[in-house]
Amino acid sequence: MKKISILGSTGSIGTQTLDVIAMHPDAFEVDGLSAGSNTALLLEQVRRFKPRRVSVSTKELAEEIRSSLPPGVELFSGNEGMVEIAAGGNADTVVTAVMGSVGLRSTLAAIEAGRHIGLANKETLVTAGHLVTELAERKGVQLLPVDSEHSAIFQCLNGENREDIACITLTASGGSFRDYTRDQLKHVTVADALRHPNWSMGAKITIDSATMVNKGLEVIEAHWLFGLPYEKIQVLLHPESIIHSYVEFRDSSIIAQLGNPDMRVPIQYALTYPDRWASPAKRLSLAEAQRLTFREMDYARFPALKLAIECGKAGGTATTAFNAANEIAVARFLRDEIPFLRIEEIIEEVLQHHELEAHPNLEQIEDCDRATRELAGKL
Amino acid sequence: MKKISILGSTGSIGTQTLDVIAMHPDAFEVDGLSAGSNTALLLEQVRRFKPRRVSVSTKELAEEIRSSLPPGVELFSGNEGMVEIAAGGNADTVVTAVMGSVGLRSTLAAIEAGRHIGLANKETLVTAGHLVTELAERKGVQLLPVDSEHSAIFQCLNGENREDIACITLTASGGSFRDYTRDQLKHVTVADALRHPNWSMGAKITIDSATMVNKGLEVIEAHWLFGLPYEKIQVLLHPESIIHSYVEFRDSSIIAQLGNPDMRVPIQYALTYPDRWASPAKRLSLAEAQRLTFREMDYARFPALKLAIECGKAGGTATTAFNAANEIAVARFLRDEIPFLRIEEIIEEVLQHHELEAHPNLEQIEDCDRATRELAGKL
Repeated sequence: MKKISILGSTGSIGTQTLDVIAMHPDAFEVDGLSAGSNTALLLEQVRRFKPRRVSVSTKELAEEIRSSLPPGVELFSGNEGMVEIAAGGNADTVVTAVMGSVGLRSTLAAIEAGRHIGLANKETLVTAGHLVTELAERKGVQLLPVDSEHSAIFQCLNGENREDIACITLTASGGSFRDYTRDQLKHVTVADALRHPNWSMGAKITIDSATMVNKGLEVIEAHWLFGLPYEKIQVLLHPESIIHSYVEFRDSSIIAQLGNPDMRVPIQYALTYPDRWASPAKRLSLAEAQRLTFREMDYARFPALKLAIECGKAGGTATTAFNAANEIAVARFLRDEIPFLRIEEIIEEVLQHHELEAHPNLEQIEDCDRATRELAGKL
Repeated sequence: MKKISILGSTGSIGTQTLDVIAMHPDAFEVDGLSAGSNTALLLEQVRRFKPRRVSVSTKELAEEIRSSLPPGVELFSGNEGMVEIAAGGNADTVVTAVMGSVGLRSTLAAIEAGRHIGLANKETLVTAGHLVTELAERKGVQLLPVDSEHSAIFQCLNGENREDIACITLTASGGSFRDYTRDQLKHVTVADALRHPNWSMGAKITIDSATMVNKGLEVIEAHWLFGLPYEKIQVLLHPESIIHSYVEFRDSSIIAQLGNPDMRVPIQYALTYPDRWASPAKRLSLAEAQRLTFREMDYARFPALKLAIECGKAGGTATTAFNAANEIAVARFLRDEIPFLRIEEIIEEVLQHHELEAHPNLEQIEDCDRATRELAGKL
């Protein structure tokens, strides 16, 4: 039995991870679950998957659910609670499905404790890629990508030499507004933005897809996961999201990973790697799909992507600031405080104020994150 | 230095193999070349690549070129000459680029002598797959596919477990007549048939593409190369020939190999495997390609494909007969003796007369091959 803990068990990736676990009850057991404030769903998950340890976001929520937990289940709360789920207990693999840079400390704790990581929290690598990858290497811990694009690249690299890579290409659906002009974007609503054409995902990542910030974060994540310079990471518009990403080798041969959009497939691969197990995901028929289409990425149409890559090349705290500014700006858009295009502007203004720390330690990263959030909240 | 010998050095795959060798003069040297009757080109190749051993198809041709050879070059002729090039000398890898079942004995001799095989002669596996794969396994010899489809599958299987394969799909451009109805096919000429839309290949394989016999031979080849039952081998129409073939695994994930159509890429991979070296092949831009299209294979439109798969399932000498009948019928079409659609009819009639030998030895296979040719020549 492989023991799994999940950070962010009530979110989109968290619930789909539990779907995968439920399909293979003889192979997986749940060690710990950490949730935010959706205690009703968490309690349902506890009854069904019988974890030994759970955590919620605050002490108050913990007290509310204490009497509803089965006897013997350990209860934690807050950031320390998340660290307990990540690094305490007996998990073989920790799936980091929380949203935003809040996942950083618990991910580092999990790696320090020798847990393999099913990495769904891309902000971890964006915010502190050098610390995370160095620690994982030192501890001999696998960082197994859960994002469909990075899982695709990871799969395409099976049995290949890293030195043979010419470049990798992350595909982008273009998000909810891919056919809108910049002018049409001025008046889009939250409801418009949440209608992603291909993937069913959480609200924040759906907005990040519409701004193309998500692809920017993915480029930075790919840089750290695969140890590639930014010059070797490309982005291509592919509206159907069937080719999830691909690798070009120096002999001009391209290896691509394809499938219907279904996050359960990359989640399961992160849990079963290097093996592949049966999946109920709908099998792809290219004859049914009939056609796949591709367009050059338009960096003028999606300036946040360009900005993300520039931050990646600048390195240090630049990507920390990029990510923190985006998190706050998206939260403000979702609260209807600012219009859609203001998200990009806030990121840009924050970066104009940013003083780069080239080799930040964890404390400096957390300081930068905090200060950036404060600034982005006021702009 | 890796020593390479080529059977069929003046043909399409042979000359492209020499192109690849010429690109890496510090890594490869030519040990032996076997050609048919194009002695002018062979002599040019001898001057340029300095093989130690050469062979031509007949004693007469050998005598014609003897005085033009540099001193020290050993000269052979006929089928025994081809076997000498395959199994004598010091080659590490023998590229079997001859056309038709004539390649069988020399390929077996090369395997017996412990040479790795760059397998471009698909008729070898079609005619005697069980003998060839058994001998290769016993001798610890690699059968490295040179066909673009099989090279694609081979590349997609890098680092994967064979038991995880759900199925493989060979893509088919549809050949020169893919948009013709059966009725329109009645009056097509040799010149029409030789205009393949995507690949520059020899005459025989271009006709085989138009009849879809080529894809049938490839299905049988894939059965032997990858040890898969016919139920797990599918064919898909993909007019652009960009996705060269793909593997679906049991988790529904598909790994595909893509590139511009350029035989030098799979040829080079067979010579450098498991490494990948730089190649001058034009790099694929999916943004430039804009779209890839797919259609179900139409087995009514291409009955020869259906017939090939039925022969594959029947096993034994059925595929030997299928292949021999096709070779003769294509030769007769190329000599303008029969109309295009008669190719399929001849194969079908031959198979109606065929008495299946389920576990043939080499002699029985050669007898079947000879008798089938005779019959197909008279129908």
